[in-house]
Amino acid sequence: MRAATISDGQVGVREHPDPEPGDGEVLVRVRAAGLNGADLMQRAGRYPAPPGEPQDIPGLELAGEVAAVGHAAPRFAVGDRVMGIVGGGGQGELCTVHERQLMPVPEGLPWPQAGGLPEVFTTAHDAIFTQGGLRTGERLLVHGAAGGVGTAAVQLGAAAGAHVTATVRNPEARDGVRELGAHEVVDPEGFAAGGPFDVILELVGAPDFPANLEAVATGGRIVVIGVAAGAKIELNLLALMGRRATLRASTLRARPLEEKALTARAVEREVLPGFARGALRVPVAETFALDDVAAAYERFAAGGKLGKVVLTMDG
Amino acid sequence: MRAATISDGQVGVREHPDPEPGDGEVLVRVRAAGLNGADLMQRAGRYPAPPGEPQDIPGLELAGEVAAVGHAAPRFAVGDRVMGIVGGGGQGELCTVHERQLMPVPEGLPWPQAGGLPEVFTTAHDAIFTQGGLRTGERLLVHGAAGGVGTAAVQLGAAAGAHVTATVRNPEARDGVRELGAHEVVDPEGFAAGGPFDVILELVGAPDFPANLEAVATGGRIVVIGVAAGAKIELNLLALMGRRATLRASTLRARPLEEKALTARAVEREVLPGFARGALRVPVAETFALDDVAAAYERFAAGGKLGKVVLTMDG
Repeated sequence: MRAATISDGQVGVREHPDPEPGDGEVLVRVRAAGLNGADLMQRAGRYPAPPGEPQDIPGLELAGEVAAVGHAAPRFAVGDRVMGIVGGGGQGELCTVHERQLMPVPEGLPWPQAGGLPEVFTTAHDAIFTQGGLRTGERLLVHGAAGGVGTAAVQLGAAAGAHVTATVRNPEARDGVRELGAHEVVDPEGFAAGGPFDVILELVGAPDFPANLEAVATGGRIVVIGVAAGAKIELNLLALMGRRATLRASTLRARPLEEKALTARAVEREVLPGFARGALRVPVAETFALDDVAAAYERFAAGGKLGKVVLTMDG
Repeated sequence: MRAATISDGQVGVREHPDPEPGDGEVLVRVRAAGLNGADLMQRAGRYPAPPGEPQDIPGLELAGEVAAVGHAAPRFAVGDRVMGIVGGGGQGELCTVHERQLMPVPEGLPWPQAGGLPEVFTTAHDAIFTQGGLRTGERLLVHGAAGGVGTAAVQLGAAAGAHVTATVRNPEARDGVRELGAHEVVDPEGFAAGGPFDVILELVGAPDFPANLEAVATGGRIVVIGVAAGAKIELNLLALMGRRATLRASTLRARPLEEKALTARAVEREVLPGFARGALRVPVAETFALDDVAAAYERFAAGGKLGKVVLTMDG
């Protein structure tokens, strides 16, 4: 099979042996695979794949058809449309995935959306509901709302009956975020005045503190899952005590299989019905053929886009 | 009635009008009332009582007999032995308390222990279980374990089947903390080597960071409820993400009545049975008569004690 391949800090396309599904695994013929921030870090050599995953084929999510199933993998049949998060290797023509990490693709969802759905919707759902405990009627602040996870979080928050405020640096992306359901879209410099917020989803990093600490509600939860703009903050514990606030930080990739499987079940139960009834969508900024993977990475790195950059592959 | 009274940064005893129980309230003839760190802050003018509470009578907890009940206060009868957290005014011969904040005194528990129980056991229980989610088999680290909340947390953690590590600055207090059930008692400078810890109870403040951040387990929870030694910390969010860790900060006093009542119900259900069967106790460092309240405050402020300083009053 052919696959995106990282070598010496560059990404290109190379021939690899076809992978074979092990016990509990499914072989997926990949039709679409989204790009994520971690792919860029991996290209730069700063985010090696976990042990047991393909080390030189990037890609943390995919959608495609089941091509074969391994021993003790009864969940899906050959030909089923599936999607899911993988520990690596998603950006190839074939990929093996444990069946508990896979979800069915909602009927009618185009491949590019399905290939860009798992990582951002799982991450956003886990962060704002499982970690942040967002409830109907609460106020949600989403930083970096024009990115993949941000566009998912805005939609999920609004669909759950929360009041959603979104920060977006690029003025051209603001209308798009508003159309996804954000009640206010504001500049990253001026968000604190719109608080207090019950849940703050931090996808940018240190520059949003200490305004986050000023804007968090009594009993509020700040959930940090992205720190590309800086990780070191100063914190006044007494101020945090006064708000009875919580600061949580998390990542998905390092979790064990059983925890990842739980996140997939939560998405199946609480998110996919929203796609089935047309209330949610995956904004796709641009698609690239596998042969153009280098250009796809450059497009992703350039930023300023609304939604996902997705690789597409012929079936 | 006579009551401890704060005036011009000093605490003494003065005559006050007898309080009368309002709707839902109970009038308690106080037999014992513990001192807490907040009393010292209030004496120094840095922690005013909440609106509606006695402004010049300190005291956040009490135990005594029901002397009268107000309208719509059916929970207790005159003569019942009760104890509870109050928003202020606990260190007087009489005090009114909402009945939902009161708990029955376990049979056989002496007044000094009962008067020093509510604040520290409620605070410790709320912090390590409700906020920190401590589970059987997990590892608990208690900072400042020789103090009131610390001695409660060590006992509650051990009784719940957690492995308890305690930091104690005063070497003379270490044996006492070990007798309360701590599996290790260590110096505050050397605790990180004993980790990782699933729950870290922070009663001291900034000096324990960043070692706390080094010692917190994957998925661990740091619960901050005391910062007397300093409140400003530096935090690396990326390190917190790598541990998928949570930093929570809280106080009891500022919570609304319904939340305080919930903490009292939790203590009745999960803590008082441990007193009834003799598995838990309130270490009392020293008792003082009401007339000696100034000396009691000095004793409390001097530190280096194991357990509570309690005022006692004749019935």
